[in-house]
Amino acid sequence: MSVILGIDPGSRITGYGVVEIAGNRLCYLGSGCIRTETDALFPNRLKQIYDGVTEIIGQFNPDQFAVESPFMARSVDSAFKLCHARAAAMLAGLNAGVYIGEYSPRQIKQIVAGYGNASKEQVQSMVVRILALNRSPQADAADALATAICHGRTLQGLVGRKQMLPLG
Amino acid sequence: MSVILGIDPGSRITGYGVVEIAGNRLCYLGSGCIRTETDALFPNRLKQIYDGVTEIIGQFNPDQFAVESPFMARSVDSAFKLCHARAAAMLAGLNAGVYIGEYSPRQIKQIVAGYGNASKEQVQSMVVRILALNRSPQADAADALATAICHGRTLQGLVGRKQMLPLG
Repeated sequence: MSVILGIDPGSRITGYGVVEIAGNRLCYLGSGCIRTETDALFPNRLKQIYDGVTEIIGQFNPDQFAVESPFMARSVDSAFKLCHARAAAMLAGLNAGVYIGEYSPRQIKQIVAGYGNASKEQVQSMVVRILALNRSPQADAADALATAICHGRTLQGLVGRKQMLPLG
Repeated sequence: MSVILGIDPGSRITGYGVVEIAGNRLCYLGSGCIRTETDALFPNRLKQIYDGVTEIIGQFNPDQFAVESPFMARSVDSAFKLCHARAAAMLAGLNAGVYIGEYSPRQIKQIVAGYGNASKEQVQSMVVRILALNRSPQADAADALATAICHGRTLQGLVGRKQMLPLG
């Protein structure tokens, strides 16, 4: 039985989502956001992300950590900030001895929503359905849950088996 | 009296250089490289950088940390890796409660070699001269020492005073 912490990193808002693998199901444990202080210096924001993720790890005790692979954001500057935030979150996981899985945006969409070009809304709607939530989580938390689901399904081997079995 | 740890981050080789401010002089304390395992997964390399920098902080007990601001490398992928390595090194500093100073490549060249378009060789030669070294350190260690010197001179206020005083 694994507990997976999914992270959607950002220098201002880092979303997190925690799911548990229970047999062939995925159960929702929690989700939310780490918001860095808007007037803090950038290095201090990284520390706030690191501390926030460390606190969540202490609360949920995950043995797995899942994060999206880096991608080119709106601008080079945004992408650089994202990489720093991502590394800060990953280091909190690494320092807690948690296994880290990385997935491309396309892989996450494919595994969660069924196809690699799914819209953000379609992915979020599938997150609500897969985890049987009463309402849609905040956007960054939903993205983090999608990443956790992607890792969970990969661990469950459902993805691999589905690919190997003949359809119909 | 401040001890400054300069870092030249990289996912394969992270250079470090330690200098001490002694009045209006800068004294060399040490320098070297943290080399990550070439066959290690990328998250594990980040952990190796973090652990390596943490170990150096334990050895030299700096109260200041200086690092170059991120820049576009050979490729987007290289730049992304550099940002992650940089964040890992910075977090080791942040978790040790060390003050972090950031400088652009141009600022470092300007302050160490006297002009912003100085070549790598000119900067390295000035590092040897400023710290009265017997020989040129390894390239990444020299870059880290240049960053530490830049921060040291900024702290010493030499740069500011020079700018304010009329020349000649």
